[in-house]
Amino acid sequence: MLSFQTLSEQFNKGFDTHHFPSNPATLYEPGEYFLQIGGKRIRPVLCLLGNELFSEIHHDAFQVARAIELFHNFTLVHDDMMDEASLRRGKQTVHTKYDYNTALLVGDVMIIRAYEFLQQIQPSYLPKILYLFNRTAREVCEGQQLDMDYAKMDSVDMDQYIEMITLKTSVLLAASLEAGAIIGGASENNCRQLYEFGKKIGIAFQIQDDYLDAFGDAAIFGKEAGGDIKQNKKTFLLLHALEVANAEQKAALEVLLKTNSEDKVEKVLAIFKACGVDAWAEDLKAKYLQEAFEHLEAIAVVSNRKQPLIELANYLMNRNQ
Amino acid sequence: MLSFQTLSEQFNKGFDTHHFPSNPATLYEPGEYFLQIGGKRIRPVLCLLGNELFSEIHHDAFQVARAIELFHNFTLVHDDMMDEASLRRGKQTVHTKYDYNTALLVGDVMIIRAYEFLQQIQPSYLPKILYLFNRTAREVCEGQQLDMDYAKMDSVDMDQYIEMITLKTSVLLAASLEAGAIIGGASENNCRQLYEFGKKIGIAFQIQDDYLDAFGDAAIFGKEAGGDIKQNKKTFLLLHALEVANAEQKAALEVLLKTNSEDKVEKVLAIFKACGVDAWAEDLKAKYLQEAFEHLEAIAVVSNRKQPLIELANYLMNRNQ
Repeated sequence: MLSFQTLSEQFNKGFDTHHFPSNPATLYEPGEYFLQIGGKRIRPVLCLLGNELFSEIHHDAFQVARAIELFHNFTLVHDDMMDEASLRRGKQTVHTKYDYNTALLVGDVMIIRAYEFLQQIQPSYLPKILYLFNRTAREVCEGQQLDMDYAKMDSVDMDQYIEMITLKTSVLLAASLEAGAIIGGASENNCRQLYEFGKKIGIAFQIQDDYLDAFGDAAIFGKEAGGDIKQNKKTFLLLHALEVANAEQKAALEVLLKTNSEDKVEKVLAIFKACGVDAWAEDLKAKYLQEAFEHLEAIAVVSNRKQPLIELANYLMNRNQ
Repeated sequence: MLSFQTLSEQFNKGFDTHHFPSNPATLYEPGEYFLQIGGKRIRPVLCLLGNELFSEIHHDAFQVARAIELFHNFTLVHDDMMDEASLRRGKQTVHTKYDYNTALLVGDVMIIRAYEFLQQIQPSYLPKILYLFNRTAREVCEGQQLDMDYAKMDSVDMDQYIEMITLKTSVLLAASLEAGAIIGGASENNCRQLYEFGKKIGIAFQIQDDYLDAFGDAAIFGKEAGGDIKQNKKTFLLLHALEVANAEQKAALEVLLKTNSEDKVEKVLAIFKACGVDAWAEDLKAKYLQEAFEHLEAIAVVSNRKQPLIELANYLMNRNQ
């Protein structure tokens, strides 16, 4: 059994290469530029871990892992355009360094390239992997659309928000694990349990992300605290606060949402705490984590094979430590 | 054997349906809107014709044809964004009717949906079809990039232009035929010949398109003649004129390219004729057509099976009559 860390190094070593032909360089250089910016590359490693849970890692799992990382980067290139984000991981986004048309086409060719890597796997499980990959890819687009829709809406309820987060973030984590499991020869039931594990971990991770943005130690978390609050971003915390606040707190929150005063973050956090949003978020994260581990528990393999996945979950869930 | 016309009607009948789930409607309605605008749907019918050349049409050919039409529409949605085109077939483009972010995501989900239709075909030829589809999809992106690059360049030679046209237009026609042939059980050599037939027809078609834009009868052709000339578009005609013009003609052309005078079209056409560009273009089109028919000739099936393809080629090549 290889640890999350070892698999991550193995994947990164193999991924440190060219992913496109040389010409036309005006199309492919921007693609290579973005792919070498890096990132945590959680998703491809999840694919390897999914395989390893059931059998020795097959070469095809690396191939699918690579396809998944290319797909993920396709979503980032296009999402950055939609969000008008000029930086990603501290580096210029594709449409900023080059231009919008280039970024549009770079994203397009990146998803096609992902399918080119997929197509090279053994035909015996190609249909199954392709089905999972396609469904997930479409769900990620749906999640992005819902995210844009919700940003324009006055009120979004918690179920809608969780559905959006699930589509936008969790299903790709879940599918990465399941794709590896398929290659590892897992049964349908084991695949399903592993998928649910990934989905719940993804939601727990997002709750933590929202929590840390509000309450995290900026020095450790690596980005300025309160960014979501300043942007009036709909998060687990804000949506819950709007649900549970009393009339006075709710009125105060609604005024704050319309301002950009210097003490906005401080005042919103005070309301969050008064409503018990912080403790609620920790409980909710714990609930999803527990559900995730129940699914992991239900997978019919000897428990020591599950160790790397437990390590990974702990790594993801302890970003503030 | 079914004629091009009959197959076209069959395809259109089946295609006149919803192609996406209902929700989120903000994503899928714009997709359905664009797909029902219509178009000639040459590519999917080529796929059916490719199958029919070798055997009875299999249900999978309709599935692949549908995937091809979705892919083609994906390129149109994104190309319209890049070209800032507000109309397509007389209707509003997606980014005009909705907005850029919607159009970006509609294109993305359309190519994913194309792969969802592909994935449903028989596993026995899925890898082969997927390989062809992926390679072609990537080439179409390369062609679009070259087209954008060339628009910014002062000079482009004929070989570069033909390469760009081949990638942007011809390979998808060729691959549509070949995909059908694969489903029809064609041999590798027959597939290759049919692919080359499609590629050459595509180039001949583009030469004709450039020719008609300059010399065609606007009333029959359906768009104002001289549009390419007004926009200084690099076409077969302009590139050849710049190659063969004498010093005086070349100087006159270069002055005209910098103006927008009322008699620009008339004057450029006069130079084209003086250089013999019109006759040259007709010869070049005839040369590609002849090469195309040589490839069709080389396909080892009884010649009456080729009749629908000959009909189609004639239909495409007689748009001005």
